[in-house]
Amino acid sequence: MKDDEYNSFNQVLGVRASAVASGLKKNSKLDLALIEFASSSVFSAVFTQSHFAAAPVLVAKEHLKKRISRYCLINSGNANAATGLEGERDALRCCEALAEIAGVKKEAIIPFSTGVIGEPLDVDKIRAALPDLFEGLHKKNWLPLSEAIMTTDTKIKIASCKFNISGSEVNITGVAKGSGMIQPNMATMLSFVATDALVDQKILDEILFEVSARTFNRITIDGDTSTNDASVLVSTGISEVDCNEGPGLVELKQGITLVMRDLAHAIVKDGEGATKFVEVRVTGGNKREDCLSVAYSIANSPLVKTALFANDPNWGRLVMAIGKAEGKIDSSIVDIFVNDVCLMSVGQRDQSYTEEKGAREMRKGSIVIRVNLNLGEYEETVWTTDLSYEYVKINSEYRT
Amino acid sequence: MKDDEYNSFNQVLGVRASAVASGLKKNSKLDLALIEFASSSVFSAVFTQSHFAAAPVLVAKEHLKKRISRYCLINSGNANAATGLEGERDALRCCEALAEIAGVKKEAIIPFSTGVIGEPLDVDKIRAALPDLFEGLHKKNWLPLSEAIMTTDTKIKIASCKFNISGSEVNITGVAKGSGMIQPNMATMLSFVATDALVDQKILDEILFEVSARTFNRITIDGDTSTNDASVLVSTGISEVDCNEGPGLVELKQGITLVMRDLAHAIVKDGEGATKFVEVRVTGGNKREDCLSVAYSIANSPLVKTALFANDPNWGRLVMAIGKAEGKIDSSIVDIFVNDVCLMSVGQRDQSYTEEKGAREMRKGSIVIRVNLNLGEYEETVWTTDLSYEYVKINSEYRT
Repeated sequence: MKDDEYNSFNQVLGVRASAVASGLKKNSKLDLALIEFASSSVFSAVFTQSHFAAAPVLVAKEHLKKRISRYCLINSGNANAATGLEGERDALRCCEALAEIAGVKKEAIIPFSTGVIGEPLDVDKIRAALPDLFEGLHKKNWLPLSEAIMTTDTKIKIASCKFNISGSEVNITGVAKGSGMIQPNMATMLSFVATDALVDQKILDEILFEVSARTFNRITIDGDTSTNDASVLVSTGISEVDCNEGPGLVELKQGITLVMRDLAHAIVKDGEGATKFVEVRVTGGNKREDCLSVAYSIANSPLVKTALFANDPNWGRLVMAIGKAEGKIDSSIVDIFVNDVCLMSVGQRDQSYTEEKGAREMRKGSIVIRVNLNLGEYEETVWTTDLSYEYVKINSEYRT
Repeated sequence: MKDDEYNSFNQVLGVRASAVASGLKKNSKLDLALIEFASSSVFSAVFTQSHFAAAPVLVAKEHLKKRISRYCLINSGNANAATGLEGERDALRCCEALAEIAGVKKEAIIPFSTGVIGEPLDVDKIRAALPDLFEGLHKKNWLPLSEAIMTTDTKIKIASCKFNISGSEVNITGVAKGSGMIQPNMATMLSFVATDALVDQKILDEILFEVSARTFNRITIDGDTSTNDASVLVSTGISEVDCNEGPGLVELKQGITLVMRDLAHAIVKDGEGATKFVEVRVTGGNKREDCLSVAYSIANSPLVKTALFANDPNWGRLVMAIGKAEGKIDSSIVDIFVNDVCLMSVGQRDQSYTEEKGAREMRKGSIVIRVNLNLGEYEETVWTTDLSYEYVKINSEYRT
């Protein structure tokens, strides 16, 4: 999505947002955001599977059980992770303070944090900022929201679409943050997607689970998984367009897939130090898991990633990465392509291949690496980036 | 091992080596090596578990079955991997040519290759160099051998020790190569260790399997696994010291462990772009595999590795890496130490911890990261390096 398209997102009926600078980030940057959903809303969320799930994740899961969710309260600049019981109490204190201002129960507030791990959350700063934050709620505030949730992101991430069913319009809009520590395990990074479609809890849960699996759960920057990742999908129902079945359901699922895939790709493109956008597509697997294992083995290999950075068609590294993957692979029948150029067929260098052809494709900014295992019918796709000096620089200088 | 110690290695009775420059590497560098073992020798080897095991690995496995192994023929500069049936024929042609010169069956020759993947092997260059190579065999030639097997290595790797049983001396000496594409899966890199102990096939196999698991199989530079890795252990029996049981067996196993651990550590210290030597020790696991999963999750995390490079005690990244590991972990009771400084106790920042303390330890060249899962009795140790600009540079410029 180009920068000038950011103003063309659709408002979602029944959703208001707000963002302020509470002082958690330096230089008066926006660091505290609030999203309000109409009381008719249905709320779904999936979270990181880290053993060290952060305090707000634990509190959010508890609050969601009550099924009275109305607000997402999100701070950047501090992850409130590895902070123990005190961290949970801090997250809860923020919810309680906002609940009082908003006149709802504390379980209606779902908390999210992102930023440095292991530091206590400055609850006083957040509480002091809450009145202004609440006052600022407005249906147009998607852009400040997308800015306030950033950490090492260099660009805001917002995506939007709409569709019509029997003359009535349904809107879908979402924001996300993420740039490093990105390899999803169920859900990754932070993402908040809203629609004004009318849809039941069960259907919404199924859509979030299924679409997250094919979008946010198929991207990787560095193979590392955050303690705070969450993907949220909310439907307000205000459009009154029933999307529980038939064409409504089909359109809704397609629209949410578009928005989530846009956001997922935006995260990869903004990957720390990324100079390339790389799709790794593995076809012909005996099992879905085998395809995924090969795809991630390629996408997370430092040697493949440095070759991508160097525009070097060193396909030996692709061979290496496929070789170390788990699952059933017959090395004597594997084909490998970069874009449309065949590097390897039936387990060795393709006869038509030349270094010049390979180098030409590798110089492109967007590359598809395709592996055909030639064993079965399954396929999987993963998106990733290269590994550059800049990645090392960003992650060496983070915090200093 | 310091440079000036390289001349103090012990010769092993019944072993001769040789190395020449055949022209596979540029600039007349040594690139072809031969090791000869007395006809009394017992020969063990473990190999890469890559699906794309290279041609020489396939041929070596076949030849080993005949149990008449006498020679290791090793070329660097070309891996002869992903070269299909033609690659196997090339490896075999080299064996046949040497067998003729040495007057042995071709199955007595065990071939090894290391270098660029996917290029056909220049068999003519190798065959032309074989007479000189064979002529050059000498018991003192361990140093040229160690040099000829190098690829991106910056230092030769040789280790040695001896012990006495009832007044008789047993020698153990080994060489290895490896610097990147290092994460073992059964065996990694190339390593050739020889002893003049008298020991049966079964005992030798057990020792190689057990000791490789605790040394070469516990190092990682980048999580990538080569197509050509092999670890070879040969006993010539010429010392006539029976090491099949009792103190002889104990001493032999200890000695081989010392030599293989020295070589394994030398590989890590020479890791591509490495500025630090890092031991990751995970204790208190419920299962051995859980400890190993946590250790590798830390050792292979780009975010942990860049923090190590930057001397940044960013222990949130350790938390992240532990969190994404597989196995049973209770985040509320985990302790984390860097050297003797406790970063985290019972799942949150230790009260005595300060950034200054952490930074002081992280600045050291040799670092022990210790994680206590506080769940059980198992432990595992893995050795690794940091991730530097230099790693990206080396692997971006490889081949160019």
